[in-house]
Amino acid sequence: MDQEKYVNHSDDVLDIENEGLLDGKEIERCRSEVSDKSLSYTKPLLVKRINTTSQIAIVGANVCPIESLDYEIIENELFKQDWRSRKKIQIFQYVLLKWAFALLIGLGTGLVGFFNNIAVENIAGFKLLLTSNLMSEDKNCSPIRKRCCSTLHTEYVFCNERLKGFNNFIASSETAITFYQRYFKAFAAYAGCNVGLAAAAAALCAFIAPAAAGSGIPEVKAYLNGVDAYSILAPSTLFVKIFGSVLGVSAGFMVGKEGPMVHTGACIANLLGQGGSRKYHLTWKWLRYFKNDRDRRDMITCGAAAGVAAAFRAPVGGVLFALEEAASWWRSALLWRTFFTTAVVAIVLRAFIQYCTTGKCGLFGEGGLIMYDVSSASATYSAPDILVVIFLGIIGGILGSIYNYFVDKVLRTYSIINERGAVLKILLVITISLLTSCCSFGLPWIAKCMPCPTDLSVSCPTVGKSGNYKSFQCPSGYYNDLASLFLNTNDDAIRNLFSTSTVKEFHISSLFIFFGAVYCLGIITYGIAIPSGLFIPVILAGACYGRLVGRLFESLSSLDTGLFALLGAASFLGGTMRMTVSLCIILLELTNDLLLLPLVMLVLLISKTVADNFNKGVYDQILKIKGLPYLEAHAEPYMRHLVARDVVSGPLVIFSGVEKVGNILHALRTTGHNGFPVIDEPPFSEAPELCGVVLRSHLLVLLKGKNFSMDRVVTGDDILQGFAAFDFAKAGSGKGIKLDDLDIKVEEMEMYIDLHPITNASPYTVVETMSLAKAAILFRQLGLRHMCVVPKSQGRPPIVGILTRHDFMPEHILGLYPHFNPDK
Amino acid sequence: MDQEKYVNHSDDVLDIENEGLLDGKEIERCRSEVSDKSLSYTKPLLVKRINTTSQIAIVGANVCPIESLDYEIIENELFKQDWRSRKKIQIFQYVLLKWAFALLIGLGTGLVGFFNNIAVENIAGFKLLLTSNLMSEDKNCSPIRKRCCSTLHTEYVFCNERLKGFNNFIASSETAITFYQRYFKAFAAYAGCNVGLAAAAAALCAFIAPAAAGSGIPEVKAYLNGVDAYSILAPSTLFVKIFGSVLGVSAGFMVGKEGPMVHTGACIANLLGQGGSRKYHLTWKWLRYFKNDRDRRDMITCGAAAGVAAAFRAPVGGVLFALEEAASWWRSALLWRTFFTTAVVAIVLRAFIQYCTTGKCGLFGEGGLIMYDVSSASATYSAPDILVVIFLGIIGGILGSIYNYFVDKVLRTYSIINERGAVLKILLVITISLLTSCCSFGLPWIAKCMPCPTDLSVSCPTVGKSGNYKSFQCPSGYYNDLASLFLNTNDDAIRNLFSTSTVKEFHISSLFIFFGAVYCLGIITYGIAIPSGLFIPVILAGACYGRLVGRLFESLSSLDTGLFALLGAASFLGGTMRMTVSLCIILLELTNDLLLLPLVMLVLLISKTVADNFNKGVYDQILKIKGLPYLEAHAEPYMRHLVARDVVSGPLVIFSGVEKVGNILHALRTTGHNGFPVIDEPPFSEAPELCGVVLRSHLLVLLKGKNFSMDRVVTGDDILQGFAAFDFAKAGSGKGIKLDDLDIKVEEMEMYIDLHPITNASPYTVVETMSLAKAAILFRQLGLRHMCVVPKSQGRPPIVGILTRHDFMPEHILGLYPHFNPDK
Repeated sequence: MDQEKYVNHSDDVLDIENEGLLDGKEIERCRSEVSDKSLSYTKPLLVKRINTTSQIAIVGANVCPIESLDYEIIENELFKQDWRSRKKIQIFQYVLLKWAFALLIGLGTGLVGFFNNIAVENIAGFKLLLTSNLMSEDKNCSPIRKRCCSTLHTEYVFCNERLKGFNNFIASSETAITFYQRYFKAFAAYAGCNVGLAAAAAALCAFIAPAAAGSGIPEVKAYLNGVDAYSILAPSTLFVKIFGSVLGVSAGFMVGKEGPMVHTGACIANLLGQGGSRKYHLTWKWLRYFKNDRDRRDMITCGAAAGVAAAFRAPVGGVLFALEEAASWWRSALLWRTFFTTAVVAIVLRAFIQYCTTGKCGLFGEGGLIMYDVSSASATYSAPDILVVIFLGIIGGILGSIYNYFVDKVLRTYSIINERGAVLKILLVITISLLTSCCSFGLPWIAKCMPCPTDLSVSCPTVGKSGNYKSFQCPSGYYNDLASLFLNTNDDAIRNLFSTSTVKEFHISSLFIFFGAVYCLGIITYGIAIPSGLFIPVILAGACYGRLVGRLFESLSSLDTGLFALLGAASFLGGTMRMTVSLCIILLELTNDLLLLPLVMLVLLISKTVADNFNKGVYDQILKIKGLPYLEAHAEPYMRHLVARDVVSGPLVIFSGVEKVGNILHALRTTGHNGFPVIDEPPFSEAPELCGVVLRSHLLVLLKGKNFSMDRVVTGDDILQGFAAFDFAKAGSGKGIKLDDLDIKVEEMEMYIDLHPITNASPYTVVETMSLAKAAILFRQLGLRHMCVVPKSQGRPPIVGILTRHDFMPEHILGLYPHFNPDK
Repeated sequence: MDQEKYVNHSDDVLDIENEGLLDGKEIERCRSEVSDKSLSYTKPLLVKRINTTSQIAIVGANVCPIESLDYEIIENELFKQDWRSRKKIQIFQYVLLKWAFALLIGLGTGLVGFFNNIAVENIAGFKLLLTSNLMSEDKNCSPIRKRCCSTLHTEYVFCNERLKGFNNFIASSETAITFYQRYFKAFAAYAGCNVGLAAAAAALCAFIAPAAAGSGIPEVKAYLNGVDAYSILAPSTLFVKIFGSVLGVSAGFMVGKEGPMVHTGACIANLLGQGGSRKYHLTWKWLRYFKNDRDRRDMITCGAAAGVAAAFRAPVGGVLFALEEAASWWRSALLWRTFFTTAVVAIVLRAFIQYCTTGKCGLFGEGGLIMYDVSSASATYSAPDILVVIFLGIIGGILGSIYNYFVDKVLRTYSIINERGAVLKILLVITISLLTSCCSFGLPWIAKCMPCPTDLSVSCPTVGKSGNYKSFQCPSGYYNDLASLFLNTNDDAIRNLFSTSTVKEFHISSLFIFFGAVYCLGIITYGIAIPSGLFIPVILAGACYGRLVGRLFESLSSLDTGLFALLGAASFLGGTMRMTVSLCIILLELTNDLLLLPLVMLVLLISKTVADNFNKGVYDQILKIKGLPYLEAHAEPYMRHLVARDVVSGPLVIFSGVEKVGNILHALRTTGHNGFPVIDEPPFSEAPELCGVVLRSHLLVLLKGKNFSMDRVVTGDDILQGFAAFDFAKAGSGKGIKLDDLDIKVEEMEMYIDLHPITNASPYTVVETMSLAKAAILFRQLGLRHMCVVPKSQGRPPIVGILTRHDFMPEHILGLYPHFNPDK
């Protein structure tokens, strides 16, 4: 659960520019409001306060300032000047720089992806080797060292070197000890490794960056929808996400590295976007053009795509994931740039994998660009096959939605534990880790030993860390199929399940047990304080389910069980994630079986359709639990019965075109608004008229410049002298000028300042009688932060109010109009 | 060239509801304006008339009424009633119906795609078999019949039966005749078949549906951008597109069936969307919900995707093509529906291909779902390979943009010929057909006979219609490599070029000649009056270019020449079409080589980047030549210097909330406007205020109902009694109520009617001082047809003007402000 990311940051609240900033007292009040735990458990955790424009998510008992992003192109003197000053060569540089950044994002994410892979494979592989050696050492009467080194492959050198240190420990165990002692020793080593790794991951998460816990995809999705919660893309989050993910996956949890990789990619992109950091003295003059939310959004979209591309080694799948699931706004230029980024990732990964085939990467090396190749299986199918596949899709969809339901419940339960402090968080992680270890080591006892097949090119029982035939407790010539699934990394378990032409390899009962265990472990693992992706558990459970269906319907369908496993994975993914095209392409790139494409499409469509009848996709659920104000692409039906005026909340703070400094300061201090309408009044115009909207951040910069005038006159562009457009560009999260940085003297309070040059003279407006549904579509499609509501009839003040993201939230509207049924 | 689609329809102009309808006299004037041919040749063919809101494309000397589509959700009494009347079960039906339509579109397009394939393969295959038999009959001293039937495959039965009729003809030629006589006889047969087929295709195009000529992708793209030109999706166009495409491709032209398939898919979708046609008595009550531009747009998007899916047997590629190239607006629900449609297409195609493997489809059967399988080639590459590939990408991009340049020039030249009448059109087609035949039959003489390779599993020279080793004039044991490329269908030629592990099969000089011929033929063929896709000629030229590069850099790169051909095709596609992700996936689905994906991505990116420096993509060019008012996604830079008021054109026709019938009729007669602002004035409101916008089509329906009142009073919803929402739904193109259908008596002219119930009470508005760039983004993003411009200051009439698509066209704005540089 990632709710803990908001812990311990309530002190920083006042540092963050946010929509509707509350003072300390109000925060305290909010906090006490939700101290009733039953509330935070059973209700959506977003507590809204009606009739202010403030917008704050109360998650657990913690206050999290959430900032809206603004994708509007500002039209005022300032930016016109800026535009004029851009020479053609500068625009060229600008475009070039965008590509350079895309390249850097691709390189960075590719590197991290490779590092992640190699680290996980080596840590987890070492752990598994150690365990299996402890288990089996004298069954074959060979000292661990000899046995280990009898593996012929790249693992040879690795074992030889790494295990030297363990020699003394091992030597003592070479005497005759009973089987059970050996077993418990192996279990202790296994569980000990797991708990150690898990605790390390949890400690990173709990103490350094709580925002790094969980998948990260919902946060990225929210950011790309225009919601910037505190520190979700901060460097500390990046650090914890990378190392926490490696540790967590190595610890044998039922978690994946995909969600964390997406978050990592987004963090890398954000870091590069803020790259011109004054802290590191890396400021180019032309970097200022990226200092706006639009360009950052584009870069973070690229980062998310690169993350998927690196996690699944699926470049096109990455682009489509970003398009279908992550991004809320899309344009064709972005498609192209994202595509470039993922191409870079693919090339980087391929180069490293090529390098690793020479055996220099320890235990890493399997998979290549295609992780689970099933293309060797024959993909011919007929009518009965299709019937079975349709059945598989329907049940897969139902199981997927049940999965979502329980993830939701578990997440809410864990949030209660997690919000009680770092120690409890870590204890929870350790508990789950122990439970996982017990399952992995205990359940294989249920399975019977199966005789090795005779016509095999691979060795049986399996030698080394991975493979289809683990011996576990079985005598020579036999293998334990359940151990082959449990005592492997998740990647290898999936590979075993996807393996083709091995119908009878796993017994039906073993598949049943493994499916049950994985399904439950997946549910109870998501929500603990480690970076945890959802893809791999879902694929694993789905593959097992698919193989099971394949075995059960053997008489009906002649399709390979490996292909059934693939279809099962597709049905589970469709049932939980509710994506279509991107999953299809990701699965295609994972398994390289183009001929199965029509069936995969069919299964995805069926399972998504079935599951959509029960609940929402898992990421949307998490978004909702987190209380992030996500704007849906469509307007809710009940909005058709309201007009814009109905949801406008007050009181409205208005500035004059030439305003007294004291008034501005007072407004900035007493409200948390980020945008203020500016009105021109006589003598500057004939009648009062709306001049535009001015942003809090721009006001702060302007006040800091102190170009005040004694009289109430229009000074125009003159006050911008001494400023560069760069000064008004958006600073990094929490880095802009604060109200406290201003040092306005008392005599200056009575002076005037001309706001026209920094006023956005072309704000988007709607008439007060505009249907709220249509206003919502306008707001969402254009990615606005402020929308002005103007009066319909004449002779009234020229502005009725300002609509922000908060005003379109169902919680806000249904709070004002409780008689509306949200489902109609 | 498709310009001729506008021919012969000037009589219908007055029948079409269009934005800014001109009366007969004005049309005459327009026509004479462009009778100066040099104008229509050198300038963009869209002639705009400043300061009216009329919008008419003059193509050649022909007037084409272009209608804007409207995706706005109308908010008025009428539609609120409609919404209230929808029970939950009806909404369910509505959703179900959408899916049913998607299914039908998929089935229809899949069927047509299969029919297209089977027809082309059989007609062209028969032609080629006949020719090659005529050529070779006594070289091996065997009567044609025996030789033909020595082919062992499915062609056996086919030949045997079809050639019976030719026996007499053949028998006479079995005496000793000279080689050249035989050659000329074969040429005559070949050219005769070609000319016959070509003339048939041209006749269909010229006499039945001129709109069916050309690719069709630009038209579909324009439709999905909101531009409905006359008859581009009419049933007659569908008919000609299907049969014209089969005939054209069979005639050996350097054209493909892909563009036409996209257009066909869109036409099928349109036909189904209008399906509830009164003509065929197929009206469901709930079909009325599709009677709007939004739902039709969605269905046509599905149709376009289905077209690509059927043409390339690439379901995911189809979705991405629709997303990247065809559609201007996209939403995630659409992604899902499109995906479903293409899945249906894939399943239909697969079922038919399965059926055809039993040999019941004549000469059809090759390819399967993957048309050009190159997956057998090893896809390992190193640094020098990548350097060669980068070089290939750069040159490919340059050649692609040169291709676009010449296609543009040729298109403009042909438009002069085409507009002179049907006979000249057909003559042009026949000329090009003869030229193509001469190239195909003449150029192989240049190639030397090459000895057959010895280690072959296939026969050499090739037996049957397709294959890598055509004998042509060569003695037994030798083959003519150029003939293997020329005397094949385009599909088979591509398959030959993509064939792997056959490095030396084609001589470098032969590749040079073929490349030159295909490149030039491709350029001069597009624009003649047949349905002609651009994909296949570009892929063919690109594959040849790629293979050539592969041969030239043999010493540097060890990549298979078949893979080089694939990369060459990618570079040409990137250079002409300028798509990225969709091309990548289409190529992947065509060739089934996932491991080459990073290189394909690299090549596409390089060639697109290079080519974008020279000109626009080929479809955008064609759009521009056709004068279709396409709205770009971004605003032009010079729009930043203008405000909305600057481009508003007058005079404005305004209605009162309760208006005199005579005034309405007069306005409808004298203007061509499609939307009229409605103003509430005292006594109905305190001051004049904007009530909304009323549509011409709704006014016509209302007037037809004759619910007039004697006095000027607000009657409200009462006047809607006797109407169903269905009556106001949008009719099919040219099917709505006409002005002449109204029969208003003189005494009724003085009566009043309340316009409030049919007025869209929530029109999108902008303030007159809104930056034009931002207004354009608003207009484009929301898919509007009318946007109201309201005054900034009070005390003026409540509306300044209405902006339509026309007002955002660069031609219009630069006509008003000629001093702006469009490039800045």
